[in-house]
Amino acid sequence: MGEKNKEYDRFLRNGTNTDRLQFFSDAVFAIAMTLLVIDIAVPTISKSVSDAQLDGALWRALGEEWDQFLAYGISFWVIAVNWAGHHRKFRLIGSYDQRLITANLALLFFIAFVPFPTSLISEYAGAMPAIVLYATVVSVISGLQWYLWFYAHRAGFLAPEVTEGMYRYVSRNYISVPLVFLLSIPVGYLFGGVWAMFFWILNWPASILLGNWEPKRRR
Amino acid sequence: MGEKNKEYDRFLRNGTNTDRLQFFSDAVFAIAMTLLVIDIAVPTISKSVSDAQLDGALWRALGEEWDQFLAYGISFWVIAVNWAGHHRKFRLIGSYDQRLITANLALLFFIAFVPFPTSLISEYAGAMPAIVLYATVVSVISGLQWYLWFYAHRAGFLAPEVTEGMYRYVSRNYISVPLVFLLSIPVGYLFGGVWAMFFWILNWPASILLGNWEPKRRR
Amino acid sequence: MGEKNKEYDRFLRNGTNTDRLQFFSDAVFAIAMTLLVIDIAVPTISKSVSDAQLDGALWRALGEEWDQFLAYGISFWVIAVNWAGHHRKFRLIGSYDQRLITANLALLFFIAFVPFPTSLISEYAGAMPAIVLYATVVSVISGLQWYLWFYAHRAGFLAPEVTEGMYRYVSRNYISVPLVFLLSIPVGYLFGGVWAMFFWILNWPASILLGNWEPKRRR
Amino acid sequence: MGEKNKEYDRFLRNGTNTDRLQFFSDAVFAIAMTLLVIDIAVPTISKSVSDAQLDGALWRALGEEWDQFLAYGISFWVIAVNWAGHHRKFRLIGSYDQRLITANLALLFFIAFVPFPTSLISEYAGAMPAIVLYATVVSVISGLQWYLWFYAHRAGFLAPEVTEGMYRYVSRNYISVPLVFLLSIPVGYLFGGVWAMFFWILNWPASILLGNWEPKRRR
Repeated sequence: MGEKNKEYDRFLRNGTNTDRLQFFSDAVFAIAMTLLVIDIAVPTISKSVSDAQLDGALWRALGEEWDQFLAYGISFWVIAVNWAGHHRKFRLIGSYDQRLITANLALLFFIAFVPFPTSLISEYAGAMPAIVLYATVVSVISGLQWYLWFYAHRAGFLAPEVTEGMYRYVSRNYISVPLVFLLSIPVGYLFGGVWAMFFWILNWPASILLGNWEPKRRR
Repeated sequence: MGEKNKEYDRFLRNGTNTDRLQFFSDAVFAIAMTLLVIDIAVPTISKSVSDAQLDGALWRALGEEWDQFLAYGISFWVIAVNWAGHHRKFRLIGSYDQRLITANLALLFFIAFVPFPTSLISEYAGAMPAIVLYATVVSVISGLQWYLWFYAHRAGFLAPEVTEGMYRYVSRNYISVPLVFLLSIPVGYLFGGVWAMFFWILNWPASILLGNWEPKRRR
Repeated sequence: MGEKNKEYDRFLRNGTNTDRLQFFSDAVFAIAMTLLVIDIAVPTISKSVSDAQLDGALWRALGEEWDQFLAYGISFWVIAVNWAGHHRKFRLIGSYDQRLITANLALLFFIAFVPFPTSLISEYAGAMPAIVLYATVVSVISGLQWYLWFYAHRAGFLAPEVTEGMYRYVSRNYISVPLVFLLSIPVGYLFGGVWAMFFWILNWPASILLGNWEPKRRR
Repeated sequence: MGEKNKEYDRFLRNGTNTDRLQFFSDAVFAIAMTLLVIDIAVPTISKSVSDAQLDGALWRALGEEWDQFLAYGISFWVIAVNWAGHHRKFRLIGSYDQRLITANLALLFFIAFVPFPTSLISEYAGAMPAIVLYATVVSVISGLQWYLWFYAHRAGFLAPEVTEGMYRYVSRNYISVPLVFLLSIPVGYLFGGVWAMFFWILNWPASILLGNWEPKRRR
């Protein structure tokens, strides 16, 4: 309502410089990645262990934390890969409006949330609630990354160098991650939660296959 | 006192490039947002729960943490919306003096403080001290956002494109948040703290109504 | 040793763009400021307190944490003021060498350390070890801020607009903080640690007096 | 596979502006450095200690935490020195491809991990698992820093001012850190873990010697 207000909004909420948007997003990505390490607990060795046995006991205790290290590694890589994708995309997004900012904030919401399902997985490795939550969060993140790209294209925010073929190529790259992670949920229920986690590793070959696939229809 | 000192101060404390100011503020916003997740506790399941029952127990435990998830969601959104507003405003603020920097640091003080009332609310959902503290902090943040805009206007720091009508439009947008949050305090005392939290949701329609309202007098 | 190596060092370690230096410092300042809030503990209310009495018990528990809130406030402001001073200084520092970078990293070392003496003070308010450690860290920070300014001047890194009078004006501004904080240590031993903390508040009038004082000799 | 896809990849994954890459890396370095302080525990003094004895007990308790302060100091400096090296290198790296980004993310992975072996060392000073893990992480970081430099050179990303002699000079500077840290592991097994930590201090003279050494063959 109100012609004037709409005009003000257009002026205030749209822009052609995404530097601060990228900068702010980078900070959230970086903090989420670096906070993950806080979750890896320093092992507690019983006081009754003698000095001579301490080294052995500490090695064993560290070995028993393998799931915490694995969870740290997977989550760091999930956030890192999403940062790299965000970086690539925003090099080509030349302007923004309020909706793009809101979608980006929603993405950051889930990026900042990643440390929680990571803790859950490293505390209850193989338990299905941890698997379902983790797989859902990763899938939602991929979905929002795709939406940012889709919306920037539709709204005409992409740099003129981006051809239709390139736009579709990038879009295809967002299919494999949610596909693998969502499929891992029934896999976990059928064969056990640990198998779901192994299923996630399928992400690499799947993303390569789908990324390389080139549709026949012409551009 | 001292002509020379005053002259030095003018030179040292005023500037026409707010990049580092924005950058620094962004970092504080981003860290405060990302720290919120640390507060969500990984549920502890009693050791006596059998493996077969673990999944069910974990789902229930996660469900019982709904207030922690809600608190995380609300606070993330409060900080995100304030970041977006800060971003919009500083695109139009072309220079600064010491007072603007001090006001901005005061704003960051309360932004960085948000994780504390958030923990309080998720630990004691519905308790009035938590409600009062949270509502007060959010209102003070809105007040300081308004003050930055008001002061930048008065001191002549706004870009020449900002018309009087636009200045007043943005100012009106800062009324609804403190209004709703401060009103929620008596609501909480009259009907119970949980109702105060539901009252906060009124913020959305209120901000739309007040934002769209266009005063009759001409510009 | 080695002419070539020296030449390489000159090329690699000196530069005329302090953007990344400022940016990196900003991030450390922002994180140290925002981490302070983690230290404020959510009060624990005994389970035996009835629902009707919860509000009163929580208000009292929050009131008893006044020293934690005070410590948060003081430390946030110490870091904020130091950020503002760093910001002002680096606007005028146009180039750098290895020594300037090392001195800046030493400053960041102590800025990042501030949360520890802050915790100590909020846990053992008035205990002299906490007072001595806090006062020493704040004084060392001021000393390093002064050194950065002194060294940038001596090495010829300051912008040409900085006159001798202005250089000395800024230098004088670094005297009051270490003076007040170091003097607070004997005050604490003579009259008790709480008086040392009140003594810190003298910092404001002292910095105004010293900052405004204008030496008679001409520039 | 697919000519078109390869062409898209070239366009999407290569670039000539490393600003955002540097910025993001800076944030990770800054956060990892600042998080270290969280690990220094505020000492707990038994409630049975009288007020008159509190100061003495607190001084002693702080003194007994010397290993935590040492671990904080060493790790801060390890990350700071690596930041300075990253900063110097990326001033001269003018473009990037996907592999450089991946190698940089791998570096950040280990930088963000440093707080964990630091906690381990400050909890179990002198225990060999802590020594081995710490020395390995620091060596891997140095190795990745070297790889970034090596790869940027091979791929032709270095600024034209970088001569062959300068390239080799910087490369030599990466030899001493892994050498000293990896050698400290057998030293620790032969003479005890504390000696390994003293051995690390050799890093300073070793890096100066190796850095200054100038090979005879001409450039």
